[in-house]
Amino acid sequence: MTRHELVNTIREKQSLLCVGLDPDLNRIPARYDGNVLQFNRDVIDATRRYCVAYKPNTAFYEAMGLEGLSILQQTITYIGQDHFIIADAKRGDIGNTSRYYARFAFETLGADAITVAPYMGTDSVEPFLEYDGKWSVLLALTSNAGSDDFQHTPQEGGEPLYEKVMRRAQLWGSADQLMFVCGATQAERFADLRRIAPDHFFLVPGIGAQGGDLEAVCRYGLNEEGGLLINSSRGILYADDPGQAAHDLQRQMAVYLNKFAPGLSQ
Amino acid sequence: MTRHELVNTIREKQSLLCVGLDPDLNRIPARYDGNVLQFNRDVIDATRRYCVAYKPNTAFYEAMGLEGLSILQQTITYIGQDHFIIADAKRGDIGNTSRYYARFAFETLGADAITVAPYMGTDSVEPFLEYDGKWSVLLALTSNAGSDDFQHTPQEGGEPLYEKVMRRAQLWGSADQLMFVCGATQAERFADLRRIAPDHFFLVPGIGAQGGDLEAVCRYGLNEEGGLLINSSRGILYADDPGQAAHDLQRQMAVYLNKFAPGLSQ
Repeated sequence: MTRHELVNTIREKQSLLCVGLDPDLNRIPARYDGNVLQFNRDVIDATRRYCVAYKPNTAFYEAMGLEGLSILQQTITYIGQDHFIIADAKRGDIGNTSRYYARFAFETLGADAITVAPYMGTDSVEPFLEYDGKWSVLLALTSNAGSDDFQHTPQEGGEPLYEKVMRRAQLWGSADQLMFVCGATQAERFADLRRIAPDHFFLVPGIGAQGGDLEAVCRYGLNEEGGLLINSSRGILYADDPGQAAHDLQRQMAVYLNKFAPGLSQ
Repeated sequence: MTRHELVNTIREKQSLLCVGLDPDLNRIPARYDGNVLQFNRDVIDATRRYCVAYKPNTAFYEAMGLEGLSILQQTITYIGQDHFIIADAKRGDIGNTSRYYARFAFETLGADAITVAPYMGTDSVEPFLEYDGKWSVLLALTSNAGSDDFQHTPQEGGEPLYEKVMRRAQLWGSADQLMFVCGATQAERFADLRRIAPDHFFLVPGIGAQGGDLEAVCRYGLNEEGGLLINSSRGILYADDPGQAAHDLQRQMAVYLNKFAPGLSQ
């Protein structure tokens, strides 16, 4: 999916919602009797009109062994072509090896995008960016407590590591192929994040279970094209009514789009 | 495998060798007709007496789809219990999710260790360290060109990022459960790396195809227990005679063990 198509979808649906498909066998309703694929299909059917993206986290599927990978493939096929699909895999290795991860995400799974870890630098990220029409979503400022350990530390010259990552990575990939992970739990920093990368999309986890502030993220993070994909996983998957939970989020997003990015309103 | 057992194996075999099982379908000899499992088995049979560890990189298996994961499982089963097995997966995610990656590496695959990326900090690493008797191998100073982008940058106070990672991580895990990836292409830094982490094992990629200096790594990196697992992948897998290539490396290692860690000689 191109950026133009993604922006059009955001405008049409008045939604920035990304649904995280992270099925936890301990939390899936008993009526599914452990049938993860059926659970995913039902969540997708209930939410597809309200969201613009899906983000299966590969960890949840790998933990189910070979069957899990098959479920992941079938889930992505079931989603189809009308949503932006992010394989949340947080991969990254020397260039020779990242090429294989790229093949896994983009060819084996057929995702539009993969999340990538920046620690190993340019040649670990480039093989993902070399895929025409595919996207890399680079970890910048994550939503977890451990983001304090290294990401916030000022580098020589004063900028924190996440800022260095975002500035450097903009030399590697354009806003048509590169996004950044910016956690909603760091909402107070979104004005600053948007200043560092005015044009790039941010993938924003941390709404809901992790406590992020949706209004602040939209207020400071929206740009003229939206520029945000805001993820909810547990808050939708394990709601009594996943469709209702997704619809509620979409309606809030429509309000904030109207308020903070009026050019995108219908 | 415990540290005590690993050190005994190093002493008995006079070897620090880790064989990287990264099968590339384009480079496997034609006589295998694409049978990766048989290729791996033959490499293992030819090398098992000379090496103390095996390190399959998950990227190469994932790129083969579901069948690849099955080959990876069968390869690890074939290696058996007498070698230290590292799933080179470079994983890391929020704590809730890293738990699933840990289950994949330690339960589904049955590896002794997994490589882990540090960017997301403590709660992304802890779930791996919580597995009794298992190991985490944290990226510190990698062997690729991109390590220049972020790992070497001085932090406030002057220490480079990789040093901060190594110091901080020693608060999370002991030398009985935590190792560091330190690339052989940075051999001139090994005295410094050993000063930062005197007791922890280092997993050292970059010998051979990547150009690392084996003698310098041993001279500056060996400690009383060895403290090094030195990896060769392409240099062994695609040698005319993988067993001979492994034996050659083991003999060099025996010389350096005798020279720089005489307490480990037989």
